[in-house]
Amino acid sequence: MQIKDLGEFAVIDLLKETVTAQRSGPDHGAEFGYRLLVDNGDDAAAWRTGNATELFTTDTMVEGVHFNRKTTPWTDLGWKSLASNISDIAAMGGHPMYALVTLGLPPETDVDHVKELYAGMMQISNTYGVAIVGGDMVRSPVVFITVSLTGVHPDNPMLRTAARAGDEIGVTGYVGSSGAGLRLLLEDTPAPSAAAEYLSESHRRPHPATEQGRLLSKIGVETAMDISDGLADDLSKLCQASGLSARIYADRVPVHPLVKQTFPDDWLDLALNGGEDYQLLFTAQSRLMSEVLPQLPEGSALIGEITEGRAGEVVIVGSDGRETAAAPGGWDHYR
Amino acid sequence: MQIKDLGEFAVIDLLKETVTAQRSGPDHGAEFGYRLLVDNGDDAAAWRTGNATELFTTDTMVEGVHFNRKTTPWTDLGWKSLASNISDIAAMGGHPMYALVTLGLPPETDVDHVKELYAGMMQISNTYGVAIVGGDMVRSPVVFITVSLTGVHPDNPMLRTAARAGDEIGVTGYVGSSGAGLRLLLEDTPAPSAAAEYLSESHRRPHPATEQGRLLSKIGVETAMDISDGLADDLSKLCQASGLSARIYADRVPVHPLVKQTFPDDWLDLALNGGEDYQLLFTAQSRLMSEVLPQLPEGSALIGEITEGRAGEVVIVGSDGRETAAAPGGWDHYR
Repeated sequence: MQIKDLGEFAVIDLLKETVTAQRSGPDHGAEFGYRLLVDNGDDAAAWRTGNATELFTTDTMVEGVHFNRKTTPWTDLGWKSLASNISDIAAMGGHPMYALVTLGLPPETDVDHVKELYAGMMQISNTYGVAIVGGDMVRSPVVFITVSLTGVHPDNPMLRTAARAGDEIGVTGYVGSSGAGLRLLLEDTPAPSAAAEYLSESHRRPHPATEQGRLLSKIGVETAMDISDGLADDLSKLCQASGLSARIYADRVPVHPLVKQTFPDDWLDLALNGGEDYQLLFTAQSRLMSEVLPQLPEGSALIGEITEGRAGEVVIVGSDGRETAAAPGGWDHYR
Repeated sequence: MQIKDLGEFAVIDLLKETVTAQRSGPDHGAEFGYRLLVDNGDDAAAWRTGNATELFTTDTMVEGVHFNRKTTPWTDLGWKSLASNISDIAAMGGHPMYALVTLGLPPETDVDHVKELYAGMMQISNTYGVAIVGGDMVRSPVVFITVSLTGVHPDNPMLRTAARAGDEIGVTGYVGSSGAGLRLLLEDTPAPSAAAEYLSESHRRPHPATEQGRLLSKIGVETAMDISDGLADDLSKLCQASGLSARIYADRVPVHPLVKQTFPDDWLDLALNGGEDYQLLFTAQSRLMSEVLPQLPEGSALIGEITEGRAGEVVIVGSDGRETAAAPGGWDHYR
């Protein structure tokens, strides 16, 4: 049985089970007051220290799988390789802190390209207050970048597992803009310059929602995750983690006017299934939702509700009232 | 200019310079009492929290560069991919705590091999008290494994930069056993079974020196690093970091009798230039050295002294009194 047959998510579930069920070593952190709070399976791991909660995440980009050089110049690659990690910390409601960067690079890599890569990393690091404190460079036949990042939260982080039936579902801003930007870059879709600039910038320079995550967590929201693989997929994962279902309304999904203009037939598909938006998806009871939404940036919206039902199922209600089920699962790079 | 022309270490120096000199973002950790203590360039990064020092390191193995399947079965690969990280924490004098594991795997990878990999990871994790709390699995044309690991130290970690002229140089146990094991596996060198077992076990299941690192740090040793690229290379790096030179005596380098028996002509070369021993190299003043050595395991030895001189230069004094300079630099995988 190969990974591509069993499927990415089944393999990951197997490994999660292994590392938690078979863990039996000494707990060195205990004598310093460390206590594990969030184990495998959320946006980041988390543990209490004596006086704060620490967060820990990692994310990797492989050439030809997660990016190619046509649509992602080196500087943008540097930005994006940190953005996905910062977004994981944002989803927990934390501040990012310290990063380690591993570069897998072929010997023929131009040193100027490595400098451009780091220029992008420094731009986002300095914007978000990340200190790159170390890393590793290894020879590899394919370009890959792995970042691991710590974060800090004063108290309890938001989780994927905390949704309750009856919760309303919110997003922190427009979705689909990054996916639209990627399609524009891949297909050379004609578009007016304002639209082209907005879309390609959305794809190339996503801004993780750390401020929004801090706000949500401070105000009392307990359930969140980031949208990296597409709204429908990620909502399905959140529902799966919470053992519940969701119903969302197509005409409430926030899509930027320039996306609608540029892709009049496909904007909903881009909004539901385009990835790398790095907005936050969150759930809260009605009273809390109406308190928090006005404080969030343009585009933020209430899009549906959490329901009892088959774990992970997401139903999309069209503007004509017709219901369709979003495909469960997620973006399986192995299929 | 390509990486292979400029050289791995020049590129790494350039990147270290970039990430420290151009760092200008907000410091989110400050409000929680975090203060960066050890920046880029040591075995691990380190920062003070309110009540402890945290350590943070990462290390990667790429197929065809750092291992191949003939000499490294999957279970051993799992063990070794964590061992090199645990060794970095040992070199600082800390306890390992939480790990994230990133697997880069081709779609055709056999799921049973992934299980074997994790069996090896669980063996070393449970031995050393590491909790694997998350990770990532990505499609990749080449197998790679990146581990990032946190650690904790009650006080000030040991550093590469703290050596002083006149310090004596110690190692915590035998060196060259892993390199001898690799040569045995690659060349099918004939050897009696006891030797073959000791050597291949040394290569396939290195034991990071966490207990020794904790002991050294507790007793007051301030300078250490782990031997991952070979004694001569790593000592040169330690000297480089401290701006000093070293002189070591060939007949004091601790080499296991089975290594000498199996490689009667090459044991010194294996001891100086074989990698992956994961012993600790440390320096201390004479009084402290004589206090600590008797408390270390079999093989530990005083091998030379730190001297004033060209930064990074290592002189090896042969048993006949002849002096030779070890090649400076390190194991450049790009050349």
